[in-house]
Parts: sequence; structure tokens; C-alpha cells
Amino acid sequence: MTLALGKVPYSLLEKKVFTRLGVKDEAVILGPGIGLDSAVIDLGPRVLVIHCDPITEAKKRIGWLSVHISANDVAVCGAKPRWLLSVILLPEGSDESVLDEITADIDRAAKEIEASIVGGHTEVTPRLDRPMVITTAAGIVSKKRLVTATGAKPGDLVIATKSVGIEGTAIIAEDFEEDLRSRAIPVRIIERAKTFIEDISIVKEAIAAIHTGGVTAAHDPTEGGFIGGLVELAKASNVMIEVHEDKIPVRSETKVICEALSIDPFKLISSGSLILTVKENMFESVMSAIRREGVDAYMVGRVVEGSGVKFYRKSGSVEVYEEMIIDEITKLWEREKHDSIY
Amino acid sequence: MTLALGKVPYSLLEKKVFTRLGVKDEAVILGPGIGLDSAVIDLGPRVLVIHCDPITEAKKRIGWLSVHISANDVAVCGAKPRWLLSVILLPEGSDESVLDEITADIDRAAKEIEASIVGGHTEVTPRLDRPMVITTAAGIVSKKRLVTATGAKPGDLVIATKSVGIEGTAIIAEDFEEDLRSRAIPVRIIERAKTFIEDISIVKEAIAAIHTGGVTAAHDPTEGGFIGGLVELAKASNVMIEVHEDKIPVRSETKVICEALSIDPFKLISSGSLILTVKENMFESVMSAIRREGVDAYMVGRVVEGSGVKFYRKSGSVEVYEEMIIDEITKLWEREKHDSIY
Repeated sequence: MTLALGKVPYSLLEKKVFTRLGVKDEAVILGPGIGLDSAVIDLGPRVLVIHCDPITEAKKRIGWLSVHISANDVAVCGAKPRWLLSVILLPEGSDESVLDEITADIDRAAKEIEASIVGGHTEVTPRLDRPMVITTAAGIVSKKRLVTATGAKPGDLVIATKSVGIEGTAIIAEDFEEDLRSRAIPVRIIERAKTFIEDISIVKEAIAAIHTGGVTAAHDPTEGGFIGGLVELAKASNVMIEVHEDKIPVRSETKVICEALSIDPFKLISSGSLILTVKENMFESVMSAIRREGVDAYMVGRVVEGSGVKFYRKSGSVEVYEEMIIDEITKLWEREKHDSIY
Repeated sequence: MTLALGKVPYSLLEKKVFTRLGVKDEAVILGPGIGLDSAVIDLGPRVLVIHCDPITEAKKRIGWLSVHISANDVAVCGAKPRWLLSVILLPEGSDESVLDEITADIDRAAKEIEASIVGGHTEVTPRLDRPMVITTAAGIVSKKRLVTATGAKPGDLVIATKSVGIEGTAIIAEDFEEDLRSRAIPVRIIERAKTFIEDISIVKEAIAAIHTGGVTAAHDPTEGGFIGGLVELAKASNVMIEVHEDKIPVRSETKVICEALSIDPFKLISSGSLILTVKENMFESVMSAIRREGVDAYMVGRVVEGSGVKFYRKSGSVEVYEEMIIDEITKLWEREKHDSIY
């Protein structure tokens, strides 16, 4: 079977990846699985949370992105991401200035989240046409503060922060600017959309929310967008999540851009929004903790018995999701490829 | 300045990478530096040793290689590599069988060293022409057993295991087979050379040697070969290392292949050989511990005051090295490129 671009399907991960995990180690509290981005390792009273992710396609700020993307996954477990290792792969013929920009970016992102770069590898790699950065992030948290995507329980409320698709909106504004202009999207909207990328870190609000003790599960939606993130969380916790479109904030720039391109903002890559399930009686404490960090948060739905995601559209239709969501941004790449061929 | 293929120069790492390490963290016992492959983090009575490395150019067994290459760097600190995270990047149009082979390989390598795969990321990446695997390896060791490349002291003896250039010999036998045959190298030598790749793990002997308490510094020579590894260790420990060519084992297949291609086996990529500096009075204990693991070890030189490496050739000449060694295998790639252009 020829594999499609992007993340490989759940079924293949389950068959060819998750069955091949070396030896069993009793200290591994959480290993690989759908929606389980970070590993959790028992160190006695505390646990080590560790995650690794690549940035392979972004054009700008890749060092900065790489740090935030990996750090987010550690933070959603309640562990402050403190230690980073970045592997930097540069294309042949790279000027020193490329490395200069990437490491300055990594450093800036690390300082923003108060993390330390402790290792990595830097090389010029043959037959690459753009730089790539792969960052490992790690942190420590006490066992009683540990949160994963597995803990959502029927009855919990679902909180979302910021807005959906902010990462995707920024990527589209940068990479499809010509296209947007040709569709008469005003320049000021495109320029504002580009700045959304600055919002992709969820470290501070995740740590603050989890420290209240009221969060049962947390997840950072990335590819597959907000709905994709909900599906991953629902699968990891073995529950159903019901959410209502009219309760979920979408920034006006995201709306305008998605409408112009006929894509669904709820399935658009979505780092920066944080999904939390919380005990009903702790709802207000968690909301206050997030807001004290200067981040908006909304109650968007509820955890129920069952499996997958039930998405109540404004239109009145109800969509049910149980499988991996193909990110809307891949549609745009496909269209672009098609346009350039014909 | 346009950067050359492979690792970037020490001077650039010092200027553009090691100065940009985010915030300072008191728990970081060992961060990035020349010859410092693993990060060491203080967890109280124990330390976390963590390392990340990419496999970007190998053609075969890349999952297997990636695990061993990263695990080796954790083991040279005395920590058993127990937890692995592998990022798998596949080229567009990859068949499922490619992923199948890589994950089976990762699993096999993990089982060989008794490690557990705890996380990672698998994706199909646009505009790649071959798969890449980036593995993070981590383990825990007590503070009193921790060894790094910084601890070599004048008066220590230098031990090397197995043989130099075994990794490079295997790579050449695989990738330059035609060339070797055209130079009348017998097929049985080429076939034996290919099997050397099975020897690249140093986990068992490193852990056994370090557990004696007699090892002051340990390093796993990779690119730049045996001399490159010695330079890195010498720089990390701020000492001079004197070694004698006639004491260092070179397998006959390596000799034949290197002579035919006019390359220096002592500067040929060398995973599988382990460099240790040991207290003189613990020399026999360390040697016995390594040999009990079924691995050959040799006393090859001594640590003295000074800086860099003094290499006494059999011919009587004395070479002094203080800078990064360009690996001999890059010469072959350059020649191949040249041949294919003209």
C-alpha cells in the first residue's frame, strides 16, 4: 500500500509501529498510542515526560516552531518543559546565515517558555531542499499532578482555549498569500492572520490549568485540527466527546480565509488551542487559572459514555467522527500540486 | 560562508549553537559542547542521560542503526539506554513495506540492548528521496557512576575496544561494492566487511567497564573516526592524548579496503569501537569487565598534560591534531560526485 503524505493512518500505526516497542519496561507509565504524544516514565515520586516531533515543511521560523510544538506536548501532561534537544538538518550549500537564524529562533523560543537547550545535533545533509528541525522536549512532574489524554471521564466538561485553526490560518496566510489576494481577501486580514503563529505555545496555560488539580485529560490539537484533537483525546480516554460548534470561538480572519478557500476551520491544524476535560465541580477554578495567564477559554462540550466525537454543527446537523481527520491544509497542498501540473 | 556537507565546524558550533541555549538551568550537569554527545540532568541522587541523533544517509537497516547510534551515546555515560523515541520520516510514494522494515528494525535493535520504545512520530514527508530516522535515547544512572567525556586526567591509560573503522568498512562494502570489485578486492572480503555493521553497539561493554568504577572518561567515536573521537575526548577533558598506531587493532578487511581506496582507517567513521580513559590502578579490572562481555580491548596510549591528540605512526612520524577530523568517507562521496559529473 502506498502511503499518503502526512501522518500515517491509525490502523497502520497500530499494526506496524505500536506492536514493535522493544522490551517491556515496568517504568513506562505511558508509551506510544493514538493521541498519546508524550511518553511518561516512572522515576519514583516523580515522572519524566518526554516528547519528540519534527518540523519538516514550514518555511519560516522553523527553529522557533520546533521548540514550541514539542514543548506543548510535554506541558499538556502538566510537566514544565525544561530540557530541549534539537537536531538541525541543513540542505547542501546552506549559508551560515541559515544556521544563524535557526539557532537564534530556537534560543528565543526556549527563553519564551523558560527552557534550556541541553543537546542535539547539527549537520549539512545531502539532497535536502529545505532545513528541518527535530526537537525533543522533556520535563518532570509529580505523580499526583500528572495528566494525560487518557483520563477523561463521562460527566467531565470540555474546555477549549484561544480559537481553532490559528496555526493553520497563519500558515495559509504565509504560504498561500497570492491565492488569498487573488480571491480579494484584504491585505490587512492576511497580515493579521500571519501574526497568529505567535500564539502557538500553550505551555503557560496548560501548566496553570493542570496545577489546579481539576483537569482529567489534556491534549494539544495539531494536524487534523480541533476535531482531530478531540478524536485523539476521545480514543485515548475511551469515551465520547460531544461538542457544539456555536460554543467554539473562531477568529474572524480564520473565518474569512477558510470560507474563501472552502475549508473547514475545525479540521485545520490547530496548535495554540488547548483541549482540556475537567471535573464539573472544578470548572470555574480551571477557567480562572487559564484566564490569569491572559488566555481566553470556553466551555465547548461534555464527555459522555461511548466512543469518538459527536460534533453538533450550527446548521443543526450532527457529525460523528471515530477515525483520524485528514487536515484541511493537505487539501490546499493537493490543489496547488494539481494546479502546477495542469 | 557556505557550509560543507556533514557536521558543522567546531568554531561555528561554538559561535552559533552553544551560545544560544535558552535559559540557564541549575539541574543541567552537562549541556552541549564539543565531544559532549549526551545531556546529563540532575534528578537528585540520580541523573538523566539523554541523547538525540539522526540517520540521514544510510541505505540499509536505518531503524536498527538509529537505535544503536543513539543508545551508544547514553551508554558511554554509564547509563543503560532504556527509553527510545524514534521520529520516522518517509519519502512521498513510500510503500507500507518501507515502514514495516524500519519498525521491525527498530524493534530488533531495541531488544538487542533491552530498551523500550516509548514514543516518536511517523510521517510521510514531501520532497525526501529516502527515509530518515531520528532517535532520542534516555536512561538513568546514579551520580557516583556517571562518566562523561570530560573526566580524563593526565596519567590515565587509554583503552580502545574491537577495531577502528568497522562502521566505515561496512558502509564502504555496501555502498562502494562495484568500485571495490573493480579494484580486484575479493568478494569474500567484501562480504565479511558488510557484516561488521552488526558490531556497532557498544552498550554492554560500556556499562560493564563503567560499573567497575575505574573509568574516568568514555567516548564513542563516530564521524572523524578513531582519531576524531580522541580529539573530541581530549577537547572535552582539556588534556592531551598520546596514542600509538602499532597498538591499535585494525581488522584485515578494513586494511585491504582502505589501502585499495587510499583512505586512512584511523579517520574512518568508527561506531563500535569504544574509547575509555582509566585510572592506572584500575586498568586490569576494566579490561576484564570488557572481556567478560566477549569484546576485545587494548591499551593504546596515555593521557598527558596539554591539548589535542599526538598520534605516533608506525612509520615513526608524529601527527598532532587539535581540530575536527573530516571523515575519510566524505572523500569517497566527493570522488563519486566528481566521477558522476565528468
